[in-house]
Amino acid sequence: MQAYRVNPGQQIAGLERVEVADAADAAHSTLGPFEVRVRVHAVSLNYRDLMVVKGQYRAVKPGAVVPASDGAGEVIAVGAAVKRFALGDRVVASFFPNWTQGGPTTENTGGALGGEGDGMLAEQVTLNEAALVAVPAHLSYAEAATLPCAGVTAWNALFVEGRLKPGDTVLLLGTGGVSIWALQLAKAAGLRVLITSSSDTKLARARTLGADETINYRSQPEWQEEVLRLTEGRGVDLVLEVGGKDTLARSLASARMGGTVAIIGGVSGFDGQINPALLIGGAKRLVGVFVGSRTMLEDLARFSASAKIKPVVDRSFGFEQAREAFELMEQAGHFGKIVINVTA
Amino acid sequence: MQAYRVNPGQQIAGLERVEVADAADAAHSTLGPFEVRVRVHAVSLNYRDLMVVKGQYRAVKPGAVVPASDGAGEVIAVGAAVKRFALGDRVVASFFPNWTQGGPTTENTGGALGGEGDGMLAEQVTLNEAALVAVPAHLSYAEAATLPCAGVTAWNALFVEGRLKPGDTVLLLGTGGVSIWALQLAKAAGLRVLITSSSDTKLARARTLGADETINYRSQPEWQEEVLRLTEGRGVDLVLEVGGKDTLARSLASARMGGTVAIIGGVSGFDGQINPALLIGGAKRLVGVFVGSRTMLEDLARFSASAKIKPVVDRSFGFEQAREAFELMEQAGHFGKIVINVTA
Amino acid sequence: MQAYRVNPGQQIAGLERVEVADAADAAHSTLGPFEVRVRVHAVSLNYRDLMVVKGQYRAVKPGAVVPASDGAGEVIAVGAAVKRFALGDRVVASFFPNWTQGGPTTENTGGALGGEGDGMLAEQVTLNEAALVAVPAHLSYAEAATLPCAGVTAWNALFVEGRLKPGDTVLLLGTGGVSIWALQLAKAAGLRVLITSSSDTKLARARTLGADETINYRSQPEWQEEVLRLTEGRGVDLVLEVGGKDTLARSLASARMGGTVAIIGGVSGFDGQINPALLIGGAKRLVGVFVGSRTMLEDLARFSASAKIKPVVDRSFGFEQAREAFELMEQAGHFGKIVINVTA
Amino acid sequence: MQAYRVNPGQQIAGLERVEVADAADAAHSTLGPFEVRVRVHAVSLNYRDLMVVKGQYRAVKPGAVVPASDGAGEVIAVGAAVKRFALGDRVVASFFPNWTQGGPTTENTGGALGGEGDGMLAEQVTLNEAALVAVPAHLSYAEAATLPCAGVTAWNALFVEGRLKPGDTVLLLGTGGVSIWALQLAKAAGLRVLITSSSDTKLARARTLGADETINYRSQPEWQEEVLRLTEGRGVDLVLEVGGKDTLARSLASARMGGTVAIIGGVSGFDGQINPALLIGGAKRLVGVFVGSRTMLEDLARFSASAKIKPVVDRSFGFEQAREAFELMEQAGHFGKIVINVTA
Repeated sequence: MQAYRVNPGQQIAGLERVEVADAADAAHSTLGPFEVRVRVHAVSLNYRDLMVVKGQYRAVKPGAVVPASDGAGEVIAVGAAVKRFALGDRVVASFFPNWTQGGPTTENTGGALGGEGDGMLAEQVTLNEAALVAVPAHLSYAEAATLPCAGVTAWNALFVEGRLKPGDTVLLLGTGGVSIWALQLAKAAGLRVLITSSSDTKLARARTLGADETINYRSQPEWQEEVLRLTEGRGVDLVLEVGGKDTLARSLASARMGGTVAIIGGVSGFDGQINPALLIGGAKRLVGVFVGSRTMLEDLARFSASAKIKPVVDRSFGFEQAREAFELMEQAGHFGKIVINVTA
Repeated sequence: MQAYRVNPGQQIAGLERVEVADAADAAHSTLGPFEVRVRVHAVSLNYRDLMVVKGQYRAVKPGAVVPASDGAGEVIAVGAAVKRFALGDRVVASFFPNWTQGGPTTENTGGALGGEGDGMLAEQVTLNEAALVAVPAHLSYAEAATLPCAGVTAWNALFVEGRLKPGDTVLLLGTGGVSIWALQLAKAAGLRVLITSSSDTKLARARTLGADETINYRSQPEWQEEVLRLTEGRGVDLVLEVGGKDTLARSLASARMGGTVAIIGGVSGFDGQINPALLIGGAKRLVGVFVGSRTMLEDLARFSASAKIKPVVDRSFGFEQAREAFELMEQAGHFGKIVINVTA
Repeated sequence: MQAYRVNPGQQIAGLERVEVADAADAAHSTLGPFEVRVRVHAVSLNYRDLMVVKGQYRAVKPGAVVPASDGAGEVIAVGAAVKRFALGDRVVASFFPNWTQGGPTTENTGGALGGEGDGMLAEQVTLNEAALVAVPAHLSYAEAATLPCAGVTAWNALFVEGRLKPGDTVLLLGTGGVSIWALQLAKAAGLRVLITSSSDTKLARARTLGADETINYRSQPEWQEEVLRLTEGRGVDLVLEVGGKDTLARSLASARMGGTVAIIGGVSGFDGQINPALLIGGAKRLVGVFVGSRTMLEDLARFSASAKIKPVVDRSFGFEQAREAFELMEQAGHFGKIVINVTA
Repeated sequence: MQAYRVNPGQQIAGLERVEVADAADAAHSTLGPFEVRVRVHAVSLNYRDLMVVKGQYRAVKPGAVVPASDGAGEVIAVGAAVKRFALGDRVVASFFPNWTQGGPTTENTGGALGGEGDGMLAEQVTLNEAALVAVPAHLSYAEAATLPCAGVTAWNALFVEGRLKPGDTVLLLGTGGVSIWALQLAKAAGLRVLITSSSDTKLARARTLGADETINYRSQPEWQEEVLRLTEGRGVDLVLEVGGKDTLARSLASARMGGTVAIIGGVSGFDGQINPALLIGGAKRLVGVFVGSRTMLEDLARFSASAKIKPVVDRSFGFEQAREAFELMEQAGHFGKIVINVTA
């Protein structure tokens, strides 16, 4: 069996495909009672995966790690006590394999895939049955692979931490994987969506996905003013803040009184100082969103199925092209998700 | 100015249209500082209004009362301190004129229109500006008149008390005003909808409005079994229980573990004993919903506008046909709302 | 090793103490990787345990079952992968061994101890580490044994489902295990407590535990009127309804507008019809509480420790006196909890 | 009648006591239908009031303003339609006279007392009945005057935004009015309290009020490490952040995973940059708290009464000593609240 391994401190060039002997054996060896063996079909990339590969991510286990948190595949072996899945089932793995329900704790967020634990960029992986969720029938493996990190982060921000209700307005920054997932979820849930980009082409594409209002932040650098204009001075109920130079203060200014800025791990980091007076006078919330639980992944899968949401895959690569996939991620110009097809 | 008055204890036949001299004068008299005078254009009927007319409703002020809680019209005069509205504004009145925000209290639910206070079945009414909400631009007066009681009740049940999230499943009983409002709201908010009726024609019509599954409770008297079958044994997240013979136990059986049965004032009342063991073993909630606040009406109006929801008006009557409208309500065979056009 | 076994359909008299050979061996056999072996020191009884013994409880596994959900003891062996506990740790078992966090589901409430799974009335038990919680230092084994069912049920009703805040008022019915736990928790959390009993002696004792108001329901059979009088006509924020003849309608009448009646498995069952109009007009909630999750047990243990709550043990029995303990439970005259000391 | 007036841009020295002729007349003139005339007995100061006096606060109406949001007094006249109060009633005013229930909006937070509207540092004031709350019987006017801003802010942070439950741990920074209110509320509600100060004397006094752990931030400048030590590495559930040099990053580090930092208007402002990664990786919330609604003031008053909480008044001044009171506030060395007795 083959898998990719990150060699610490070597950037993308150091990412190497290796033969993993013991893991190949594992398919034939006796699994633990609750373990499931999965043949991975597709992996999707997140910016965090790039950080892991480049040695910029903190929470990585010592030694070589198999990167990528998000993957979907087929059950090829099950342990003696496994009840949730059977051979042939199509499954997707949960970002935090120990976080089943409820809120995050230090305990349940340990061992995240592709970081503190090995990830999905391998031909086969072995996981506890509790870490897996069934793939909705309308999704391909490639599409399903986009759910665990980007999809769940968007879900958590909008409907768990954000507590949005139908008719609320959300502001999305840029057209990366989380923002496009959020756009699709928001429209299917009856929300009004404002979205920003530096590209009119991408904004036009966002409109075809249902965006109600688009803002080119290059031509409108004071885009928070446009947000206020489009909301009759009120501001939006939630901003999904994905990071960037000088965005945070503008995001806070864009939120309504009592509104929320949900902040997720960002492409280019954050800078600029936050003025706490903005939070107090507006009774606003600045909330860190750290992916989510398996229950959120199940809720997302269920909603994607009932609303027939097809995640947007920007470009797909073969298993041998993993480095190219990470390089595209580094260029940060994609619209939606980047996918690696592990098994043809 | 003319208005209808309920003569206590006389059934529908006792409903009479009278000339109200002092109210006619009121249009010209000085309004209180926060009062707004409205020329009513349309009224919609609820079962509760029928109960008031028939003397079956408890919370009615002594003496003759102007019936009907729900009406929409045009602002024709404003008090000196009124800030929220101006002449010519299209407005709809809130069921509880004193319940602005937050949860219900004995204090803020006092003085409900068409019960403890005079209602909307009049050519003109005077209300505090705090009791009014702007009509969304895409709605006619007749459509807007369906929001305050039926629409808000459905909103409260689904999104406030029910706390539903996208992808959840709701069961609606019958095709009356609240159920059809709930159907439209639920679909626009990304919920899955099951609906029951004794008429295949009405079920077909519900499908055109987006219902995912339909159940004819006449051909399937044990309809809760069909609900469980359609949800793979899990049950629905919320039942909107509008009353009826032997429905409550079936509704409880239809709800999932930890699910909710929202119970609203019913057409034919409730009977049958509730077995509390059903609630305990399933950790279920049985929640009384009593219309809602002005904030809920505003949220409903905002969502209706952004989702372009057009309320379903079953049949319209002229102002002089008010009795016929109540008689149709009594027959309980309508689909959606019954409206009286007060001003041509 | 010895354990008690329920012989189906034989009432208390059929409860027998048997030598369990394989279980005795288990202490020496290799445990599963996440299993923990516990020497039980004390067990507390709940009415549900009596129902199991008398064959009146539905959710019981086929064949003989070891009764009693609630027990505390000492870790005497751990599986290879166990991280949460070490030899010698004092632990208490969670009622639902699979319900860790979040809300109840059919999946996580399966296998309840002393019902669908074997219980704690045994000298030794083997459980997954995820099903155990550390005993707070200030509690004896006997006291700790009262937490899982009675304590967690009270916690869930007051602070999870009931969402009570400081200064709210709660009505407790009777002086059984759940009610007395609720009394102690409520007072330590800054709630106002009204409690009922047919015994002035017990009411006096409740006052020494902090009850603010006491009502003898024998001398005041219309006790809901007294509740309203003591709350200036408003009603209480939450009623903890433990069942009994004709109590439910009175409990609903005792709750304030928008208030909650939390209903738990009851001593003498429920009767009397619920009038849904009481729920609707008052916008009240009738909520089934089915014990709770391990997280709730942890929260309860943490609060008990910080507030130095000592659970009330009514009477203790030796391991050989288990039948007498169940007989006392059947008489229903206790104040607080009945405990069986398994290991001296 | 006399009142104090802030002369814009003149610092504390510019605060002057003036005879207000028209207001004095108002007591005898006809009140608006919902207005209530109050003879003010006591006023308490908040740091925001000092900012108003010094011209450092933004939201102040043009021209001279009567300062101080918080005051309590006696009803001496009522408008024709007033129902909530009668002559002689003891009342306290709500910080935001238009925010009755629910969440904050631009609309309901307009007209705050002592800022956008005239405040309480006057012998008589006229307010809408909806802006007043009854003073609990166990409180003097001086004590009651501490509820509206400091007390409600603490309540909102702990129990509304903070959603704390019994047994949770809170960290309080310093011994100003809000922190001491929070200390008293937290202990009465069964919370564990950590508190910081630069004075061992004040920490000792905090212990007599129930503080569980005290930290001298002068001797322990890295006080966040001490917080983690005292919580076994977990961090606290909520930090009540009142501002100060370099405190915010330490407060964020002190909060547990998924925990909250509630940030309120601060004594010395905030500085230091927030690292958003702290929010994301810990899934933490940074929440602005802007006093609260009348419902929160009522909840606070009710809890204060049932828990017999006596607010801590640091020092009292006579009406003619208002400048001295503001000067003491400026020195920022007080423990609890500073009060001005308006009427002997």
